[in-house]
Amino acid sequence: MQRAAALVRRGCCPRTPGPWGRRQSSAAAEAPAVLQVRREPSRRERILTLESMNPQVKAVEYAVRGPIVLKAGEIELELQRGIKKPFTEVIRANIGDAQAMGQQPITFLRQVMALCTYPNLLDSPSFPEDAKKRARRILQACGGNSLGSYSASQGVNCIREDVAAYITQRDGGVPADPDNVYLTTGASDGISTILKILVSGGGKSRTGVMIPIPQYPLYSAVISELDAVQVNYYLDEENCWALNVNELRRAVREAKEHCDPKVLCIINPGNPTGQVQSRKCIEDVIHFAWEEQLFLLADEVYQDNVYSPDCRFHSFKKVLSEMGPEYSSNVELASFHSTSKGYMGECGYRGGYMEVVNLHPEIKGQLVKLLSVRLCPPVSGQAAMDVVVNPPVPGEESFEQFIREKESVLSNLAKKAKLTEDLFNQVPGIHCNPLQGAMYAFPRIFIPPKAVAAAQAHNMAPDMFYCMKLLEETGICVVPGSGFGQREGTYHFRMTILPPLEKLKTVLQKVKDFHLQFLEKYK
Amino acid sequence: MQRAAALVRRGCCPRTPGPWGRRQSSAAAEAPAVLQVRREPSRRERILTLESMNPQVKAVEYAVRGPIVLKAGEIELELQRGIKKPFTEVIRANIGDAQAMGQQPITFLRQVMALCTYPNLLDSPSFPEDAKKRARRILQACGGNSLGSYSASQGVNCIREDVAAYITQRDGGVPADPDNVYLTTGASDGISTILKILVSGGGKSRTGVMIPIPQYPLYSAVISELDAVQVNYYLDEENCWALNVNELRRAVREAKEHCDPKVLCIINPGNPTGQVQSRKCIEDVIHFAWEEQLFLLADEVYQDNVYSPDCRFHSFKKVLSEMGPEYSSNVELASFHSTSKGYMGECGYRGGYMEVVNLHPEIKGQLVKLLSVRLCPPVSGQAAMDVVVNPPVPGEESFEQFIREKESVLSNLAKKAKLTEDLFNQVPGIHCNPLQGAMYAFPRIFIPPKAVAAAQAHNMAPDMFYCMKLLEETGICVVPGSGFGQREGTYHFRMTILPPLEKLKTVLQKVKDFHLQFLEKYK
Repeated sequence: MQRAAALVRRGCCPRTPGPWGRRQSSAAAEAPAVLQVRREPSRRERILTLESMNPQVKAVEYAVRGPIVLKAGEIELELQRGIKKPFTEVIRANIGDAQAMGQQPITFLRQVMALCTYPNLLDSPSFPEDAKKRARRILQACGGNSLGSYSASQGVNCIREDVAAYITQRDGGVPADPDNVYLTTGASDGISTILKILVSGGGKSRTGVMIPIPQYPLYSAVISELDAVQVNYYLDEENCWALNVNELRRAVREAKEHCDPKVLCIINPGNPTGQVQSRKCIEDVIHFAWEEQLFLLADEVYQDNVYSPDCRFHSFKKVLSEMGPEYSSNVELASFHSTSKGYMGECGYRGGYMEVVNLHPEIKGQLVKLLSVRLCPPVSGQAAMDVVVNPPVPGEESFEQFIREKESVLSNLAKKAKLTEDLFNQVPGIHCNPLQGAMYAFPRIFIPPKAVAAAQAHNMAPDMFYCMKLLEETGICVVPGSGFGQREGTYHFRMTILPPLEKLKTVLQKVKDFHLQFLEKYK
Repeated sequence: MQRAAALVRRGCCPRTPGPWGRRQSSAAAEAPAVLQVRREPSRRERILTLESMNPQVKAVEYAVRGPIVLKAGEIELELQRGIKKPFTEVIRANIGDAQAMGQQPITFLRQVMALCTYPNLLDSPSFPEDAKKRARRILQACGGNSLGSYSASQGVNCIREDVAAYITQRDGGVPADPDNVYLTTGASDGISTILKILVSGGGKSRTGVMIPIPQYPLYSAVISELDAVQVNYYLDEENCWALNVNELRRAVREAKEHCDPKVLCIINPGNPTGQVQSRKCIEDVIHFAWEEQLFLLADEVYQDNVYSPDCRFHSFKKVLSEMGPEYSSNVELASFHSTSKGYMGECGYRGGYMEVVNLHPEIKGQLVKLLSVRLCPPVSGQAAMDVVVNPPVPGEESFEQFIREKESVLSNLAKKAKLTEDLFNQVPGIHCNPLQGAMYAFPRIFIPPKAVAAAQAHNMAPDMFYCMKLLEETGICVVPGSGFGQREGTYHFRMTILPPLEKLKTVLQKVKDFHLQFLEKYK
């Protein structure tokens, strides 16, 4: 054994049997075959094709970055190549990407991030003490005091504590437990992870996942990936996209005939629809989930984006806790937040968290196991999340500037929400519900029968046809309602309100002019 | 319509039919039910339980962060609470987390990251010009010149260009196309994404995925999640874990009886086994993949971690390109790299890339679609990846310091690799193949029959029993071989060589003493 081990240690691999070993012939034997084959090159069938690939992945659709966005990219290249168009730039109003639209990052957040990234800066006089305090706290909780170490699969402990403290304060004292907080790679990652654990069964016992229509297409995409059953409930456009529990009942009743409805997804404030749910409505939804034994997913990433003076954000967690023990100790809930929206718009860091309520202890173990396979969420995104839940407080050096920056972003969004709603509703054949929250308008558009026919001739959904024309004629990129789902025969598009105010006015004027010409052309 | 719209715009939702609307009864109807229920609280069955959860997720195992690591956490808490142990600290040698073990970040990398994070620093004299140049280039390619914007789903364009240039240089001029480069959230994310697309079929046509044994458990975990078939091929421990093509033939032949083998995964340099594949062996593997029509996955995250003077890293991409058109234009390959390993050890940023070769154009579209559902990889991780592939060059201000830091990390690792191999091989009943590359030792350990019996009595795998005892008696946390797979009746553990040299010596001495006592106790 010593001799062979010695040989082995020299890094050369003896063909003689190893110390404990069966003899195996060397790989060298294959060489001639290689040479022989090289003589007759030919083109072979691919192994991975549309026919052979995973059919669930093939079935996935994601409109927010779909064909219309690819087209926008092509047009941008044409403009760069100097090809003349009736416009000089493409305006990407298709995705909630605030900083891409010129919104400036929150100074304090980036200061803390820079300090965590390059700790030498902790000695620099040009950074405020409160930012250094946050950075030191985060680094002390990181392995080797570095953002470059893996964190625990569930996220950095002290950041989970800060998230729990934030939730407790947000919900007026309803306690949150750091053990129920999981940091995620953006909210999308948290939502797909929890759905991945929830989905099971085949045939008529396949898991049904209830989602609003219109929806954010992450949901339909993940449901398709997981081969679960999408169960649609329609929001009430006539009641400014309110959620109506009778419609939930209708949806679950019909679903039970072909699947096992187990999950109810809520987006509040709504994306793409912008409604903000009343406390009463949330209570009704929770009661419905209790009654029907549904696991609740509350997508609350727009919780800071509420504009309508008549609306307030109520978290599902808080309302649940106030409905009495029968609910608060039984209803299973996962709620999601993110660094990407709100007033900070830090999409690129892919930061987020998920809070679970009444999750079975054994499932918590399963969740940590599943997360550990991907090791951990980006620690930089976790740090960004920490600043969001632990911002400067009165008396701290950075407080005033932080509040000024935060308020300016939010009041601007509120102005733009009102402006967008008002201007759209002045256009004949466009109706826009109030943008109570989030960052999108989802106006309903009238498409004349002639245009519908033209679309069908191009083998396109009528609203896709409309949005493509809008893009080609104005450079404005919005997403057709068919990418989010809508009632049969109705047509919409989703447009962000993120362009700077003056630019947004131009955009709205262009949409108006386009729409009138469109009606004229196809009347 | 105007009247209703006006009402709607006030943000209050009229119960009267909307302008285009069916009347729907209000959600208010549910309230009494809520009150009624509150009277009789009770504990109900959970919806999400071990019985009802996704069975594929339940089947997932991930040893690197499994029971042994949970135990390590408990022990750390006990130490903090002042509970006496035969040791004062837990040494986490279970995971390749360099910076957690005290390795310092590469200065240049963190400087560029800090500049990208907080662009005000671009005016600071305390940052070198070459770092500022890199940061400006990255920011100019980001929406709104900010890391806070979403990037393209495939990754920032100029970073993909830098990756392609790096690959071209690494492979001695073999061209790489930025369109074939996809930035990822660490290598794990890229590997699971491509496997997700590849997997299909049911029953006997379920996709078979060939993985080495011992393997890195990400593979078995993802295969389980996707309900694919794990096809094991055993590395040849007697030939220092060499890959033998005859064993591949054996594995694929047997697999064809119950599934459709479609993917061959290679880890080079090996994890946990540390072997570095010879060029000849890679050629044989590629020929085998061509012959058997297998899609190749080359996990090359340790490409910078080669220590044995007799070994060199050869990329599958390069060898494939040199085997002639029959191979280079037909064999489908995806290879993976990461910011987490090498000399930089930036695990926390979750940066990585995947290069695809001969991927069908339609599949590229499907891949981008699938990636777009998660929007984009963390842009900070993409920036870190950019610095790794685009480091300072001779003549640039930071070049000397960069090289000094890089060489010091790699030469230290080489020293520790040799030291670990030598010391382990001095212990009776431990045999350790040469650590040619990567960052782990995977020694084979002799476990006496009495200990095997004791383990079975505790319902534990014998090497889990061994590692638990090691942890409890020395505080050293390593991962049992059973978590990676090993030939029936053989036992191993995986230990990182990342602790600082002096600490590593102590660790190895402690393992030796423990092992001798263990043999004595169970002889």
